[in-house]
Amino acid sequence: MKRSHRLVALTNYFLTHPHELVQLSYFADKYTSSKSSISEDLTIIDHMFQQEGVGFLKRTSGATGGIRYIPLGAKDEIEKFIHELCDLLKDPERILPGGYLYMSDLLGNPGIMRKIGHVFATAFAHLDIDVIMTVATKGISLAHAVAYHLNKPVVTVRRDPKVTEGSSVSINYVSGSSRKIQTMVLPKRSLAEGANVCIVDDFMEAGGTINGMTSLLAEFNAQVKAIGVLAEADDEEDERVIEDYLSLVKITTVDVKNHYTKTIPGNLLPYLATKS
Amino acid sequence: MKRSHRLVALTNYFLTHPHELVQLSYFADKYTSSKSSISEDLTIIDHMFQQEGVGFLKRTSGATGGIRYIPLGAKDEIEKFIHELCDLLKDPERILPGGYLYMSDLLGNPGIMRKIGHVFATAFAHLDIDVIMTVATKGISLAHAVAYHLNKPVVTVRRDPKVTEGSSVSINYVSGSSRKIQTMVLPKRSLAEGANVCIVDDFMEAGGTINGMTSLLAEFNAQVKAIGVLAEADDEEDERVIEDYLSLVKITTVDVKNHYTKTIPGNLLPYLATKS
Repeated sequence: MKRSHRLVALTNYFLTHPHELVQLSYFADKYTSSKSSISEDLTIIDHMFQQEGVGFLKRTSGATGGIRYIPLGAKDEIEKFIHELCDLLKDPERILPGGYLYMSDLLGNPGIMRKIGHVFATAFAHLDIDVIMTVATKGISLAHAVAYHLNKPVVTVRRDPKVTEGSSVSINYVSGSSRKIQTMVLPKRSLAEGANVCIVDDFMEAGGTINGMTSLLAEFNAQVKAIGVLAEADDEEDERVIEDYLSLVKITTVDVKNHYTKTIPGNLLPYLATKS
Repeated sequence: MKRSHRLVALTNYFLTHPHELVQLSYFADKYTSSKSSISEDLTIIDHMFQQEGVGFLKRTSGATGGIRYIPLGAKDEIEKFIHELCDLLKDPERILPGGYLYMSDLLGNPGIMRKIGHVFATAFAHLDIDVIMTVATKGISLAHAVAYHLNKPVVTVRRDPKVTEGSSVSINYVSGSSRKIQTMVLPKRSLAEGANVCIVDDFMEAGGTINGMTSLLAEFNAQVKAIGVLAEADDEEDERVIEDYLSLVKITTVDVKNHYTKTIPGNLLPYLATKS
């Protein structure tokens, strides 16, 4: 097979199998090519993935060695994208009664979700994560976008148990802002004991929901390795109940009366800047 | 820029922008290459996409012409994948009290969801679809997988209205199997009047939920263009309330007592066979 044809096939393979180890010999057999030819292909793909802000190919040597595609966005493109998100979210048409912002169009947009998933996968690329966890309903698309780029499964916490998910573990927690007692449940078989978990959600106020999820994880002896939210409210910072999280956007003002919203980049951008 | 480098960049572009029209001149400018060179690149990519069962590049000529990547799986690979799904679903460990099957692991698996999304996008590639609709919670990952490959937004129907989604349209409907009256709501601003809708769900018994969604769509003067479900129960066929749908898997028997499930491919496979 010609190099030009192999490059298309290999690029497709890597993009659809992020973070997955594959042997050089797998491609050599599949495309009846020498390992040295494949190795040269990989150098070209690695170069272009870096140039296009897609990621890079990580080679490991030895008996269990191989190649992995690690999604990793370019910092300038991530910065540009986060500013675009800030602009999208500050549109006054999003303001709802009570000072909430309508975000369902963004959470339902596959192109935007793909980019957000890629950004969080960039921030969490070095972490040892087994599973992405979110709470129904609005965090689900975000969790799947992150899961796609980290190539890990999603588990979904619910507000009430469902017959189609078997026996569940349930906890009560105090919602951060309203101080109400709420319940969340996770099917027993959806999470292995001791798993390393990345929590993802669309929106965070004081952090009560995410705090609830960490309490639920304790029941599974699972560890929270990372927390990522699309948007956080700024005005709750004094009473924030969680600390280690990354946000794309911070909503600093929602003025219902004057029909005005102010947004700034969240703490993910400065976090990425420290990791050069 | 060298052809080998361009091929990697172009392949990445198409795979992340399915069904999106792009001009030859966009690539010619971006990679400072002649249109004829880009055109030759596209011939190579089209050839490999077809050979690998990814899809094809569709060229349209004229002033508004350009190129689109259309995801389209190879029939033999789709058949193989659907048989794998049948095997996964018939695992007796999935049987829950009441004869339900645990499927959350599949719905949370990004690789399996990507493949299922690609299969439905293959079946629906020729349809004029504006939006993918599903009902919370379990259909959401499936809807987003289909939406990604058709490059259309997802709207999510809920059981009860939420303050963060603004004013909603609500309907009552009769659930097919239990004959209970239930409610579903859709935020007003999430769906444009007269939209062409593809309904997606994880599981269908008699079809009452999907029937409810079509009633809800009538309130928006929207048309149902396609219906896709991951699995359907066979034993409800006599009283099925919807007809035009495609399923990947048909669950013909769930025998709780003898710990035994039987699954066969659904009607999507024979449907694809008629479309050669």
